[in-house]
Amino acid sequence: MNLRSYLVRRRRLVDRALRRYFPPNRKQPQRLIEAVRYSLFSGGKRLRPILALAAAEAVGGEPRAVLPFACAIEMIHTYSLIHDDLPAMDDDALRRGKPTSHVVFGEGLAILAGDALLTEAFRVMADCAGTSRNPRRALHAMREIAEASGAHGMVAGQAADLEAEGAAPDLPTVEFIHVRKTGALILASIRAGAMLAGARPSQLHRLSRYGECLGLAFQIADDILDVEGLPAQTGKMQGRDKARRKVTFPAVLGLPAAKERARTLLDHALAELAPFPAAAAPLREIARFIVGRACELPRS
Amino acid sequence: MNLRSYLVRRRRLVDRALRRYFPPNRKQPQRLIEAVRYSLFSGGKRLRPILALAAAEAVGGEPRAVLPFACAIEMIHTYSLIHDDLPAMDDDALRRGKPTSHVVFGEGLAILAGDALLTEAFRVMADCAGTSRNPRRALHAMREIAEASGAHGMVAGQAADLEAEGAAPDLPTVEFIHVRKTGALILASIRAGAMLAGARPSQLHRLSRYGECLGLAFQIADDILDVEGLPAQTGKMQGRDKARRKVTFPAVLGLPAAKERARTLLDHALAELAPFPAAAAPLREIARFIVGRACELPRS
Repeated sequence: MNLRSYLVRRRRLVDRALRRYFPPNRKQPQRLIEAVRYSLFSGGKRLRPILALAAAEAVGGEPRAVLPFACAIEMIHTYSLIHDDLPAMDDDALRRGKPTSHVVFGEGLAILAGDALLTEAFRVMADCAGTSRNPRRALHAMREIAEASGAHGMVAGQAADLEAEGAAPDLPTVEFIHVRKTGALILASIRAGAMLAGARPSQLHRLSRYGECLGLAFQIADDILDVEGLPAQTGKMQGRDKARRKVTFPAVLGLPAAKERARTLLDHALAELAPFPAAAAPLREIARFIVGRACELPRS
Repeated sequence: MNLRSYLVRRRRLVDRALRRYFPPNRKQPQRLIEAVRYSLFSGGKRLRPILALAAAEAVGGEPRAVLPFACAIEMIHTYSLIHDDLPAMDDDALRRGKPTSHVVFGEGLAILAGDALLTEAFRVMADCAGTSRNPRRALHAMREIAEASGAHGMVAGQAADLEAEGAAPDLPTVEFIHVRKTGALILASIRAGAMLAGARPSQLHRLSRYGECLGLAFQIADDILDVEGLPAQTGKMQGRDKARRKVTFPAVLGLPAAKERARTLLDHALAELAPFPAAAAPLREIARFIVGRACELPRS
């Protein structure tokens, strides 16, 4: 399969749906909607929603039926980026090569834009679940997304990250943070997509293991790119994590071992997909792409 | 009925349920949960959850069945207070007579505590809806609560409030802000309680009008108390709105007309309850109590 054209098509599908939730002509209060749109349409790769759609496909489902949930997940991801970038958090002035929300709109509005995105995400899911043929299944998916995002998921990861900043990094702390801060929502995207498409328990089990490996591999790759990547590739300044004394995998393991770890996780992720049909090809290629950005891979 | 003892009993019911969602021994990450508990158990009156329970009662429902949603609403209310108090927003150092979250825990953790509460609210509702006998009805209630809290409800009100600060106040602006910033969630509490308890359309219609009047009357009373109330009564410094050049009803209408407006809204609210049975007594007494705190009322 051609991953690049697949990603372009999927990204367009997600972008079009997101634009319907936040049309540009929607007023009152104008600056708030502007702030929401600024971050939501700032060139994100739409990885999480694409994973939700691809997971639905992998179990024979219709990706479009999962689209509202996929959009909601992207709204949650975007809210988390806006809040993480705030001066009281990671204090980042640049994201995807553009000034961050609080730089453009001020801190107050940036906080509110994040709050609005998080709330709209659940409105969209409640709406979709309410008209779904299987509301209980949709509620189950919604619950998992909330769990992954909340006080024991993403928010917990960011809180632990704040606490750990400047401390001597150790592997359990790095894993605790990354599993929650990025891993949980990636895993929930995959599980939600599969659940909504009616995955069998055995399929869901394998996709969950795939998602756990992918989530961790994604963060390790991100950490490696922070050390080695070019700003044009990452949209961020090189060496930012080190300057801020962030706990990262390369800091704890060293670069070669971090790369080895990412490759091993990729192998495990791909092994979980082995029994799936050709419809799981996007999930396979996405995993190879994510790890391949940061580490050289053997040719498949 | 004895309103005082009713409120004490209901408040206890809500507090016990909230404590089960955030038990003190829950660790990891400890400071985050501490920050959540600090704001959630800081002596709130639990007005919104009590209104949800009372609305369920008024239509012959079992209040306990509504309890998870009532708790979720209080979590959303608490998140909004934490974020509103932040330096980038209203910059309040005191809330209910105690230092605000960011003063105690720092801005980063205060933002995260709010994020966690908002997310947990939807987790709790999704959980409750998923095991409910009528998931579609619960989803409808959840959707209304999200709508009232989001980019066209509470968050919109706070954004407009930020924008209007220091501007010459006019009545449409004050109403736009207050209807969204406080009115929307009060209305949603009442509607959600009634919907979950199976209110008939005609009942829901009357309770919605009651809720609209009550929401606005509540905010006018709050504005009046800011001018005339003692810190012991309000937990805030007197004259804070004026010092911050907030747009308020007394600032636009003058105190006597603001009081008259609150009393008229109370009359309308009570008129909507007229066809309801004795089970609506708590809703009646709560409305009288809210307006009576700020304005002298004729004896009933």
